[in-house]
Amino acid sequence: MREIVVFSGSAHPDLAESVCSHLGVPLSPTTIHRFSNGCMQVQLRENCRERDVFIIQPLVPPVHDHLMELLQMLDAARGASASRVTAVIPYYGYSRSDKKDAPRISIAGRLTADLLVTAGANRILTMTLHVPQVHGFFSVPVDHLEALDILAGHFRDRDLSNTVVVSPDFGRAKDAAYVGRLLGIPVAAGNKQRISDTEVTIDTIVGDVDGKDAIVIDEEIATGGSILTILDRLSERGVKRKSVVCTHGLFTGAAPERFRARSDVTEFVTTDTVSSYRDTGIPNLSVLSVAPLLGEAMRRIHGGESVSSLFAGPEWASEARQVRV
Amino acid sequence: MREIVVFSGSAHPDLAESVCSHLGVPLSPTTIHRFSNGCMQVQLRENCRERDVFIIQPLVPPVHDHLMELLQMLDAARGASASRVTAVIPYYGYSRSDKKDAPRISIAGRLTADLLVTAGANRILTMTLHVPQVHGFFSVPVDHLEALDILAGHFRDRDLSNTVVVSPDFGRAKDAAYVGRLLGIPVAAGNKQRISDTEVTIDTIVGDVDGKDAIVIDEEIATGGSILTILDRLSERGVKRKSVVCTHGLFTGAAPERFRARSDVTEFVTTDTVSSYRDTGIPNLSVLSVAPLLGEAMRRIHGGESVSSLFAGPEWASEARQVRV
Amino acid sequence: MREIVVFSGSAHPDLAESVCSHLGVPLSPTTIHRFSNGCMQVQLRENCRERDVFIIQPLVPPVHDHLMELLQMLDAARGASASRVTAVIPYYGYSRSDKKDAPRISIAGRLTADLLVTAGANRILTMTLHVPQVHGFFSVPVDHLEALDILAGHFRDRDLSNTVVVSPDFGRAKDAAYVGRLLGIPVAAGNKQRISDTEVTIDTIVGDVDGKDAIVIDEEIATGGSILTILDRLSERGVKRKSVVCTHGLFTGAAPERFRARSDVTEFVTTDTVSSYRDTGIPNLSVLSVAPLLGEAMRRIHGGESVSSLFAGPEWASEARQVRV
Amino acid sequence: MREIVVFSGSAHPDLAESVCSHLGVPLSPTTIHRFSNGCMQVQLRENCRERDVFIIQPLVPPVHDHLMELLQMLDAARGASASRVTAVIPYYGYSRSDKKDAPRISIAGRLTADLLVTAGANRILTMTLHVPQVHGFFSVPVDHLEALDILAGHFRDRDLSNTVVVSPDFGRAKDAAYVGRLLGIPVAAGNKQRISDTEVTIDTIVGDVDGKDAIVIDEEIATGGSILTILDRLSERGVKRKSVVCTHGLFTGAAPERFRARSDVTEFVTTDTVSSYRDTGIPNLSVLSVAPLLGEAMRRIHGGESVSSLFAGPEWASEARQVRV
Amino acid sequence: MREIVVFSGSAHPDLAESVCSHLGVPLSPTTIHRFSNGCMQVQLRENCRERDVFIIQPLVPPVHDHLMELLQMLDAARGASASRVTAVIPYYGYSRSDKKDAPRISIAGRLTADLLVTAGANRILTMTLHVPQVHGFFSVPVDHLEALDILAGHFRDRDLSNTVVVSPDFGRAKDAAYVGRLLGIPVAAGNKQRISDTEVTIDTIVGDVDGKDAIVIDEEIATGGSILTILDRLSERGVKRKSVVCTHGLFTGAAPERFRARSDVTEFVTTDTVSSYRDTGIPNLSVLSVAPLLGEAMRRIHGGESVSSLFAGPEWASEARQVRV
Amino acid sequence: MREIVVFSGSAHPDLAESVCSHLGVPLSPTTIHRFSNGCMQVQLRENCRERDVFIIQPLVPPVHDHLMELLQMLDAARGASASRVTAVIPYYGYSRSDKKDAPRISIAGRLTADLLVTAGANRILTMTLHVPQVHGFFSVPVDHLEALDILAGHFRDRDLSNTVVVSPDFGRAKDAAYVGRLLGIPVAAGNKQRISDTEVTIDTIVGDVDGKDAIVIDEEIATGGSILTILDRLSERGVKRKSVVCTHGLFTGAAPERFRARSDVTEFVTTDTVSSYRDTGIPNLSVLSVAPLLGEAMRRIHGGESVSSLFAGPEWASEARQVRV
Repeated sequence: MREIVVFSGSAHPDLAESVCSHLGVPLSPTTIHRFSNGCMQVQLRENCRERDVFIIQPLVPPVHDHLMELLQMLDAARGASASRVTAVIPYYGYSRSDKKDAPRISIAGRLTADLLVTAGANRILTMTLHVPQVHGFFSVPVDHLEALDILAGHFRDRDLSNTVVVSPDFGRAKDAAYVGRLLGIPVAAGNKQRISDTEVTIDTIVGDVDGKDAIVIDEEIATGGSILTILDRLSERGVKRKSVVCTHGLFTGAAPERFRARSDVTEFVTTDTVSSYRDTGIPNLSVLSVAPLLGEAMRRIHGGESVSSLFAGPEWASEARQVRV
Repeated sequence: MREIVVFSGSAHPDLAESVCSHLGVPLSPTTIHRFSNGCMQVQLRENCRERDVFIIQPLVPPVHDHLMELLQMLDAARGASASRVTAVIPYYGYSRSDKKDAPRISIAGRLTADLLVTAGANRILTMTLHVPQVHGFFSVPVDHLEALDILAGHFRDRDLSNTVVVSPDFGRAKDAAYVGRLLGIPVAAGNKQRISDTEVTIDTIVGDVDGKDAIVIDEEIATGGSILTILDRLSERGVKRKSVVCTHGLFTGAAPERFRARSDVTEFVTTDTVSSYRDTGIPNLSVLSVAPLLGEAMRRIHGGESVSSLFAGPEWASEARQVRV
Repeated sequence: MREIVVFSGSAHPDLAESVCSHLGVPLSPTTIHRFSNGCMQVQLRENCRERDVFIIQPLVPPVHDHLMELLQMLDAARGASASRVTAVIPYYGYSRSDKKDAPRISIAGRLTADLLVTAGANRILTMTLHVPQVHGFFSVPVDHLEALDILAGHFRDRDLSNTVVVSPDFGRAKDAAYVGRLLGIPVAAGNKQRISDTEVTIDTIVGDVDGKDAIVIDEEIATGGSILTILDRLSERGVKRKSVVCTHGLFTGAAPERFRARSDVTEFVTTDTVSSYRDTGIPNLSVLSVAPLLGEAMRRIHGGESVSSLFAGPEWASEARQVRV
Repeated sequence: MREIVVFSGSAHPDLAESVCSHLGVPLSPTTIHRFSNGCMQVQLRENCRERDVFIIQPLVPPVHDHLMELLQMLDAARGASASRVTAVIPYYGYSRSDKKDAPRISIAGRLTADLLVTAGANRILTMTLHVPQVHGFFSVPVDHLEALDILAGHFRDRDLSNTVVVSPDFGRAKDAAYVGRLLGIPVAAGNKQRISDTEVTIDTIVGDVDGKDAIVIDEEIATGGSILTILDRLSERGVKRKSVVCTHGLFTGAAPERFRARSDVTEFVTTDTVSSYRDTGIPNLSVLSVAPLLGEAMRRIHGGESVSSLFAGPEWASEARQVRV
Repeated sequence: MREIVVFSGSAHPDLAESVCSHLGVPLSPTTIHRFSNGCMQVQLRENCRERDVFIIQPLVPPVHDHLMELLQMLDAARGASASRVTAVIPYYGYSRSDKKDAPRISIAGRLTADLLVTAGANRILTMTLHVPQVHGFFSVPVDHLEALDILAGHFRDRDLSNTVVVSPDFGRAKDAAYVGRLLGIPVAAGNKQRISDTEVTIDTIVGDVDGKDAIVIDEEIATGGSILTILDRLSERGVKRKSVVCTHGLFTGAAPERFRARSDVTEFVTTDTVSSYRDTGIPNLSVLSVAPLLGEAMRRIHGGESVSSLFAGPEWASEARQVRV
Repeated sequence: MREIVVFSGSAHPDLAESVCSHLGVPLSPTTIHRFSNGCMQVQLRENCRERDVFIIQPLVPPVHDHLMELLQMLDAARGASASRVTAVIPYYGYSRSDKKDAPRISIAGRLTADLLVTAGANRILTMTLHVPQVHGFFSVPVDHLEALDILAGHFRDRDLSNTVVVSPDFGRAKDAAYVGRLLGIPVAAGNKQRISDTEVTIDTIVGDVDGKDAIVIDEEIATGGSILTILDRLSERGVKRKSVVCTHGLFTGAAPERFRARSDVTEFVTTDTVSSYRDTGIPNLSVLSVAPLLGEAMRRIHGGESVSSLFAGPEWASEARQVRV
């Protein structure tokens, strides 16, 4: 069997190292050079011929530099006669640009998918897309992992008899509903309206939260506007203990500062799909690693074993049959 | 300016006639022949050379016969040197196959999009996709119209002071939220779990409905399982007057019979994106035509005018800026 | 060497079972679900990663349902990271839609070939196309098998000294000429004109048939109109004993009834490329299985052995060098 | 309406001139330069921007030089921003490489079609393909004209009461059958077997020819082997007066000499799809021009008028409905 | 004729305004929004349907943000049914990544060309590519303009009897040779070796420069390392008066400071293909505008007039015939 | 590991034999047949299924016949289910058609690259392209070998203390500069202007050559016009002993005769990338074989080993880092 070779762009080398150590293979080096006119040249520094190449790069800021790194690495691997090239994108930020909600815009999640395929990606391994439909934007096979089991697992052994899972957004409450089912607790949701990219209003919370503890869950936290607003609404409804949970903890802009000031939050929980957790200064932040999950998926992809059982635990599998239509 | 030519497959010629009469152009004839081995041959019976060709075909049962008709008509128009070929698909049934919720299935909404482009579709005009992300499955321009304004308009002049809009599905309540905003009334949703394609359970209704009137809204009614279940839950919560509203009124299987038996529903409202409303025998069914909307969109596409203002009324446009993230 | 995995659509599972038993591998299960809106979902229920996947599906009525099954299975296998996906299509009905014999029609044999490639077919294994040129409609490798050796073999040990091979169609007499050469007997042909899909006239028979026995051979029998007409013409010319032979025995419409009533036909001979032989009720029908031939071809494709020697017996090979121009 | 611009390669400039004079447009100049390493450069010497460009080039010997000229001209026109580029190929020699009749050969008729599309052909105008299925090898629209009406017209006013149309090849007798129907006379055919590219045997003639006059018709005459053999067979059957008719009169190798020596042939009839008629020295050779037909087709293509009525006379149209299956 | 619509990304709106004012059309507005996760959304704010759309964006730093803007604008215009979309890229920085001069790198000039076509560019208008071969990286028509005539024109009326044109790089001296021919003066070149992206050595100057005046010309100045080194070599050879000329004046890093300190340079001359000239603080910098040239090219592209005469003056055209091989 | 299979077209079977003997594999046979209409059929006569197929064919005159042979062989190998098909093109003559230096011409080097990929080439192995940018014309991986080390090696052990390397063309002097660096001697170049394909003028030689010995090096010699002119200029500058060196020794037209008459040339050195060296009759012509280099590259490609170290010796590798920008 041809060998596996793993490269990392500059977006999150720690995660790549961690994945490689789970796989038991070395992380192969790359050289990234910036020319004086701003253009970039990436060189893969390990033989790729007939190898099974994986390139790990979450699309975090500076997004477009990281995207171009990834595109060049894909093209270089193809040009160097790799047998197969898999783009491992733990955070695919453009998955939120998933529909045409204004005239004359690009559906950039689809555009970026096409760019990746044009550059030479034979397959994609990604995590927690904004909506699962984004999978269908790709014309190559996609393995789409979820971190909800990992996140829910963090709370499994606790007494949750007075706890409710809360989604900030009424219209996107599927994840909260899933976690509620995993933990055996009820669910509620804010009726969110977005004013701008950084401002939201949440008029009301639909569902019973009064006097309960709340686990607030969202797929991603950037500036944290939605989360802060729902926390306020929960406080008004008498919720005392609140946990804040997300897969992609970007914590951009004023988010770290605002969350550090939030004494009513018992705990923040996120994963290491992106590297920004390191600079938040939030003391009660737990970071759960997705490296074992990514590493296991890569091991199975390489070995031709089924990845679908990784998509979720047995609960999820049974739920999966139910979510359609 | 090159002429417009409109053809219809066999799925819904009445709608095509109606659209043509709004456009002020004749519906051009087609001949559909079935060979004795089950294969089909469709002939377009009007010159297509350098014309702007539109082919109207909702993908209703028998879905795959209608799909093959459409594919052959697209290919025939391309082969006959049409200047541009637009597939007008008022009901794109495969939009519900939009994600990979089980291992080793096709995302058939994407596959079908690719088939349409392979066959020669230069652009798509469609209505009320299951989720707006399906737009991104197409590699050609899509104009995606909504009937929510038409449906909401049906209720505008009524006294809705004691009325709530209800979505059967907690996780898909965006449409209900939009209609609620248009009509200035609150929204609620069932916490639906699907047991199978025809069976659902709705444990609870999230939101305040007790003693109110309800407008139950869903994008599509096939066997009607979800709707019947939410109606039962609403009855248990003391809702007396109920309206049932949907864009795509397929009413398959036992749906007509079951709805006819439903004396607690004041009114059923649907559109003519599909033709099945004719055979339901439901006496209190109002059918609102989308032909003027489709005709106007086709007129603008042909004439190079902006279609985006048709996507929704002014309220929607302002909301559109708010729904992202 | 990566494993072989074989799936069957719903068109002809018996043939698939039979092929698998010749190959010595199990037929892997699929689940085909029809949604209430008429759309379909096919799930492959065996791991496909890095496997050599074969999907067996003749395109028999209901043709378009079977085609969509096949397309979804191809797409699912590709999305599930199959190493290679081969569509095994023992009967490719659209091979008869091979030319543009009327304005503004699709050459549906080419269109369907493109659809199969779009859906993910990496190669095609098929039998007895209407004309060999249809091979060129595919942009992926095709292995095109013939059943003429099998059919001719049925007659090899008989006394054929007073027998002539008869093609119903003067303009398509290559197969009859080939069988005539294999059996060492002369050939004749009807001068057929087609009135419609189910009606033909044959004015005259070109060639010497008077008082002889006849083996009437055609590639496919659907309603059987051509065959019945040539039988009548042969009777008028004093032919007593007649055999009727074809590769694809569809026997649609009134064909079974009409053939059962035909006491002047000594024997009907067909193959199991399609499943309809089971329901004809024709007592003197011999069915020769193509499963060993298909199984051997699949074994060679999988193993990288030459398939060309399977294309025909040694006689055919020598003839093949002669048929060009 | 954007202008029409017509270029010719070096294969048959006289035909191009003649077509242009029917169209009433000048033939635009090209410069073809051969570099000292054998490579070629073709320059189009008229502005192509937003024009409707036609490039006329039959693929006659030296075939591959003429093919490369055509490919470069197509690419140059595309690169020069032509609005549409039509390759006009009156003789598509590779149409005879239409099937895989030996292992590990290219179906070069399909390959060449793909090369033409790769180089930039948006559509094809061609004449008398070897079989009509070759049309399906192209992924762009094809207009396929026939010269049979022109050829048959040459004989219309004669007394044909004792004449039979003869095809040299039993298996390819459709054209002869069509001409027989046009002229109201019977048809016969040789049972041809090809020994090599230049040698054939014809054992027998199927059909009644004894003592009649014969019009021998074939689509193409290269070395003339088939024709000479059928002429001998006809002489043996007492046929005195023979005419020889074909669309593509290549007359390669010893053909001119052998035909000049053939005193039993009353008349040779061909067209100017290729230019070689000029050098045959055959005194009784009539050449019918296809320039008016090509010119009219180009006029209609440019003007967006239907070309299908040109495909054949009314007889053909009615026949066309009958030839399928 | 359909209308022209011009948009600009954020890279160089002044140039776009200037081009539009030459064209006599307004610059249509765009809205560029950056989401909190670093992703971007670009909205075109003018109807594009059936319009001839031009998008102006030089690829200057931050290169990848500007590239993504351009890709999204191309995709948006295509999705909004533009009739044709032309990317106007006055500076295509990745044209320097034109070969594989190290193992396992991307030829990023080709990759970027493919990305632009994937995103929807129907044609490209660009200026002064690093080498003319980069034109061949694009699979769509390219109009490639040169500024050498504009730059040479700056010196035409001067007394150049003691002046030599100097290229810093022996191996890339074609531009200097062309300018020398335009101005009727001799040419010389440095024998450059590059140590790194910002460091070069020039051992010797090939050609006669002693005691002469020098016009040093290069296609692009970034950090200016090559230019400063050749200036030193020229000083050593007794050259007193030096002019420095380039098409793309990026002046990155320490270039402005270093050039300001260079008292031996009489004059710096560049164009406005990029916007950085505004911030150099170099007092004796002349900026020649390419806006009239770009505007005229766009006018001709839109109107279907020949652009080739713009590629260069009559001298160039005659030279062009000579440069091949 | 799947087997390697090597085929040769008719352009240079000796080289193919020689490569195969270095590889230790037999050269598999092909049959090339020319039909009487000038079309060609190539049959590969060894099983290709799942094999790693290499097809060796330099594009020497008759270029287009050899190109069509290669295209058909690629297509045949793909159709015969080869696992991978590599076109080995030691001389890619169209690499000189690398830019659009006149209006309305094809960039035939790119066109030909696209034709090769269309026909089925999965990768390319080539030598000494006219400029390295031509690599970027291919959309499949390219291994581009250079013969400069081999050619320079011929001179390594000589006393070169009074020798200079001379490039006939100032603007293409990179190869001479590289060889100069390898041999540790200076470089000079002619200031060439091309009058036509076969005529050049060289006014002056830039650099110090007076009284020295000269090694004149060019990538290719066709009619030899440039070389003969620079030899004259060198004689005028007192150069006595001259060697003439090139990779591709085509020696077309009057070149052999003219070079045989050239008594001042001590030695001609070329390689066997093309076969024409055999017929030059030049007595002092040394031919260095590239077969070991090609064979080693094929061995590494097949075995998945790095080929980049073959691209040049260690000197070149260090130089490679310096040549960019």
